[in-house]
Amino acid sequence: MNFAKRLERLVELLNEKNLDAAILGDRANVRYFTGMRFNAASFSILFVSKKGDVVLLTAILDYNRVKKTCFIKDIRKFPEDDPNYLAPLRELLSGRDVKTVGVEFSSVSVERENLIKEVTKAELLNIENDLLNMRMVKDKEEIELIKAAAKIAEKAMIKAMESVREGMKEYEVSAIAQDVMMREGAEGLSFEPFVMSGENAWLPQRFSSAKELKKGELSLFDMGCIFAGYCSDITRTFSLGGISDEQKNLFEVAYEAQKRAIKTVRPGVLAEDVDKAARDYIAEKGYGKYFPHLTGHGLGLSIHEMPIVDVGRKTVLQPGMVITVEPGVYVEGIGAARVEDMVLVTEDGCELLTNAPRELVR
Amino acid sequence: MNFAKRLERLVELLNEKNLDAAILGDRANVRYFTGMRFNAASFSILFVSKKGDVVLLTAILDYNRVKKTCFIKDIRKFPEDDPNYLAPLRELLSGRDVKTVGVEFSSVSVERENLIKEVTKAELLNIENDLLNMRMVKDKEEIELIKAAAKIAEKAMIKAMESVREGMKEYEVSAIAQDVMMREGAEGLSFEPFVMSGENAWLPQRFSSAKELKKGELSLFDMGCIFAGYCSDITRTFSLGGISDEQKNLFEVAYEAQKRAIKTVRPGVLAEDVDKAARDYIAEKGYGKYFPHLTGHGLGLSIHEMPIVDVGRKTVLQPGMVITVEPGVYVEGIGAARVEDMVLVTEDGCELLTNAPRELVR
Repeated sequence: MNFAKRLERLVELLNEKNLDAAILGDRANVRYFTGMRFNAASFSILFVSKKGDVVLLTAILDYNRVKKTCFIKDIRKFPEDDPNYLAPLRELLSGRDVKTVGVEFSSVSVERENLIKEVTKAELLNIENDLLNMRMVKDKEEIELIKAAAKIAEKAMIKAMESVREGMKEYEVSAIAQDVMMREGAEGLSFEPFVMSGENAWLPQRFSSAKELKKGELSLFDMGCIFAGYCSDITRTFSLGGISDEQKNLFEVAYEAQKRAIKTVRPGVLAEDVDKAARDYIAEKGYGKYFPHLTGHGLGLSIHEMPIVDVGRKTVLQPGMVITVEPGVYVEGIGAARVEDMVLVTEDGCELLTNAPRELVR
Repeated sequence: MNFAKRLERLVELLNEKNLDAAILGDRANVRYFTGMRFNAASFSILFVSKKGDVVLLTAILDYNRVKKTCFIKDIRKFPEDDPNYLAPLRELLSGRDVKTVGVEFSSVSVERENLIKEVTKAELLNIENDLLNMRMVKDKEEIELIKAAAKIAEKAMIKAMESVREGMKEYEVSAIAQDVMMREGAEGLSFEPFVMSGENAWLPQRFSSAKELKKGELSLFDMGCIFAGYCSDITRTFSLGGISDEQKNLFEVAYEAQKRAIKTVRPGVLAEDVDKAARDYIAEKGYGKYFPHLTGHGLGLSIHEMPIVDVGRKTVLQPGMVITVEPGVYVEGIGAARVEDMVLVTEDGCELLTNAPRELVR
């Protein structure tokens, strides 16, 4: 990865937007610009000035490692468990002529904002979307890592789906997949995976409970991992048999909607058009009001990023974008169905990155 | 759990502090007051007024479940993937006479702050420490859940330590423990677990890498799970044999320091005195400058909470507090050692909650 190049683009952005500096804390952004992995329980702060000064602030216990492995010259440490842990940021900002600072508004805390304003009197501006735009099109190396993350998730899904049987608890199914992913060298999970069976699926429950799998139910399993920083995300709908024609039809509608949406994915198409292909089909089949979420989302260093594939989203698809396609149908008393795959936008269309079997009955 | 009682105490706090409302987003706080579990990838917002109005804002996809299972009457939904996702919070605040709002400064985002200020013109005040104080002493039910989380982690540590052998990768060891915890019904991991072997341990690395375990090394494994919302945390130092007397001594110093610290734990003692027992012993043995972190931390609904057991921390220990005790020694070129256990402060002393074998050579 060319981190120096990425930092150059950030400096350009600061100059374009007339910002004196950026102070970034979002894990995905820090990793994008520095390449540094941090324990999910740890954090760090990246300072970049419009003149090109770059300082990475890390916890004392991360300092030696980062100093040894990071290309950035100016690494400083902060005492993570101290109430005054931001003192090194204060020191870094003291005496600097910083009047405007770019930060991530959805994650920068009021505590950090107050410190920045107290020391610099600067105005804070939101550059979150600019950074998301910068990360939206993936380069070749990123695509390789995303593919590796997708392959691990695929393997885990296959093993989990081969293992399901009557009486298993939802969390036992997710445990099987997690184990495969961790043994394959995933850094962690891209989100808390969840099996939702029967009534938990149409609720929806969004975490794996101790409920046991039964025949006659539609069940969903949504999961993914992080490999070398990059996320994967895949959902399968499964049944242990004994389901009605109506349940089968529900699955067929969700699956067909997904196929239709994927067929539209190519450079130049708007994100909302991919959504429309799925949404119109589901509506046409009479389930319009049972599809309560987006059709898909970009993913990369974070699990939800640009482009968002939903009603009204005008982002033009470009080669190198990676999105999920996951329309779903949730009908109380009947069941729920969603098939989710990862799709890479290529020069002339798209490539499916996840191919675990999609058949309903296991 | 008596959630209504907890909310009553929050309303009392607002009245004592002359705050018109609290708007809370920290997962641990929301769970403490509502009992609601949310997927780690989801979030929610709790509004409580000093008059006792309580509103829980959840993502659309969590709404049905929360509406069905939460004791709170006023549940509202927000569209989580929409740029305007905070509109329901705006609506909730519109027209309310709110001049001062308590929030958590270390986690409330500038985006949320701006919205609150725009709608209400209110001043935001930090009630984070008040909430941490409220959660610091655990009740009987909480202690049972923490014990259950500790037992699961203990079981996972035992299995992992039985499995270690030369040539295994660090992440393969953590995968074994994670699998035990998830199959035992843990909701997830209390933090990203890490095996650090040989040079990774004294660095320290703070995540599990692909480095293989070798004889002649000291290695650390730090991990824990979340059970019914409550965290566990345990560390063992292990070796595959072939270590020097100096390495053995390093382990003995860290372990003895831990035992001495634990011996001091009882009601009335200051947190800093527990730290001092470990720190003085390590200094006496000549490793003072090789102990770069705190001796311990409280844990409960979050993995790091009050009391912090470190230099200068004057918190008076009380029955029902749960802390870790984990002094460590890290010497470049030699190795690192840390033994961490969870300790419950009881009426007349303390109770060890984790008892996985502590012997060094496996």
